[in-house]
Amino acid sequence: MKAILLTIGNEILIGQIQDTNSQYISKQLGHIGVEVMEIRSISDGEKEIYDALTESCEKADIIISTGGLGPTKDDITKKTLSDFLGSPMVYDPEIFEHIKYLFSKIGRVPNEVNKEQAYHPNITQTLKNEMGTAPGLWTEWQGKLIINMAGVPYEMKHLMETQVIPRIKEKYTLPYILHRNLLTMGIPESELSLRLEDFEAQLPNNISLAYLPSGGRVKLRLSTKAATKALAEAQLEPQIEKLQATLGKDLLSTEEELVEKVIGQMLKEKSLRLACAESCTGGALAERITSLSGSSDYFLGSAVTYHTQAKINILNVP
Amino acid sequence: MKAILLTIGNEILIGQIQDTNSQYISKQLGHIGVEVMEIRSISDGEKEIYDALTESCEKADIIISTGGLGPTKDDITKKTLSDFLGSPMVYDPEIFEHIKYLFSKIGRVPNEVNKEQAYHPNITQTLKNEMGTAPGLWTEWQGKLIINMAGVPYEMKHLMETQVIPRIKEKYTLPYILHRNLLTMGIPESELSLRLEDFEAQLPNNISLAYLPSGGRVKLRLSTKAATKALAEAQLEPQIEKLQATLGKDLLSTEEELVEKVIGQMLKEKSLRLACAESCTGGALAERITSLSGSSDYFLGSAVTYHTQAKINILNVP
Repeated sequence: MKAILLTIGNEILIGQIQDTNSQYISKQLGHIGVEVMEIRSISDGEKEIYDALTESCEKADIIISTGGLGPTKDDITKKTLSDFLGSPMVYDPEIFEHIKYLFSKIGRVPNEVNKEQAYHPNITQTLKNEMGTAPGLWTEWQGKLIINMAGVPYEMKHLMETQVIPRIKEKYTLPYILHRNLLTMGIPESELSLRLEDFEAQLPNNISLAYLPSGGRVKLRLSTKAATKALAEAQLEPQIEKLQATLGKDLLSTEEELVEKVIGQMLKEKSLRLACAESCTGGALAERITSLSGSSDYFLGSAVTYHTQAKINILNVP
Repeated sequence: MKAILLTIGNEILIGQIQDTNSQYISKQLGHIGVEVMEIRSISDGEKEIYDALTESCEKADIIISTGGLGPTKDDITKKTLSDFLGSPMVYDPEIFEHIKYLFSKIGRVPNEVNKEQAYHPNITQTLKNEMGTAPGLWTEWQGKLIINMAGVPYEMKHLMETQVIPRIKEKYTLPYILHRNLLTMGIPESELSLRLEDFEAQLPNNISLAYLPSGGRVKLRLSTKAATKALAEAQLEPQIEKLQATLGKDLLSTEEELVEKVIGQMLKEKSLRLACAESCTGGALAERITSLSGSSDYFLGSAVTYHTQAKINILNVP
């Protein structure tokens, strides 16, 4: 199954906000064996949404949109979906009851604008949104599945976890997608590429290799899919062994690990404790280290001495 | 001028990395008056890149891609561009000299794979990349401008700042795009929408209003464009006054401000200095404060006491 994600909203196109929803949705879909073939951010325009729905339905099996389900005039995803499906809007009193309930919790009553949120295209099922007033929409149409969710991240995540993912798993028989990230260090991408020429030539068609350079490291990602996790692992395992044989000690790790994690493990093994003194990094070093649970076993703290006087007083910098 | 951004690379589609390039590029283009109409993430597939170039050239004036310019086999943006343009690859010795120079700085010599990076489509100009081995590509083709950059964020930013932005400004006469974000607090979106019904009805066609809810706040964004900054401001100013009159004290601020900036301004005004003691936030508080330039005027530093012993020794917590 192939999916296209649509993020709807001018705020992404003008760079006002970072679209973090797509990464979350891509990961969740990958875990259940749905492949994301495209992510597209478009404006809140009627033509743009209509065209994106048309083009996505031509290419993918599952189309998931976020954004444009709010009660205000600039949000037109639902109306455009209704036009696209040729399915008129119907009123759902149960949704309005839920909206009333949400408003009562903050001591308010919903108004006519909120009532609009209780309408949806006739052929569409709704997904109850416990976290907000806009229900998710689930439409099975001409062999395609179209899902629409609000763009607010915690509402979207709640719908994904409680309804979208379980329902997709139930509806389709899905393969297992497996990615393995292997870490190399200190070898330029071009040199790696030459050393892996024979390896790449023998790779079966159902396994792909990607190079992901960043700083002095190059991550190698092997990807495959199979009917089950065990089969996917059995496909990759011999390839990973070949990589180990080819690269020897230049292959630092066959797992994707963070530098702060590797350092943490070394400290734990040697029963050492770490304290930092920071200036320009302004606490960022301590933040990286403390982002790992269990870091209190070895991390004492950091003196963030930003001001010159603090460097003199606290660190005895002359 | 309308632009489409293409981010090329499976690592975004599988959710392995967050695409931060698009937000940066969107913002930079907005500042010089280029409107981003779509952002699309696609895989490193030949058909996918070719189709995306075709479709983007039908819709937009400027197409900017990032990713897929590396020396390894999985990077095929340049080859696909050459097919798309019908312009054969030519070798550019000057680029290879630059690659040799970059390798010499790390005590290495480039190999045959790197030599591939010195080829580009015949009709394409190259943009010198001081930060990496893949030059940017600048192609003027059938009235369209196609720009390709490496996906590594610091290489992309360097090319944007030093070449892409200045050259786009030189090539086109661009309008000024103005966004103003106004902050409301404590009023549900639906209620705001009703209170602003008359305001929205009278808004001229060249000004748009968007509602951006997050937590208990709703940001209102007014957007317009005009030939100059002064004209754009003159268009928005009367509308902001109307909003102030309509919302009264419910309009908290007519600027988009970060909490750390407001605090910084208050400290400066009162000539006070700030020091922090952090535990669970592990340096994040200091990082937020020091992310603003000029914070050394009022910020001394932070004692990040993560470990219990550090809290006792440094903060005298009993």
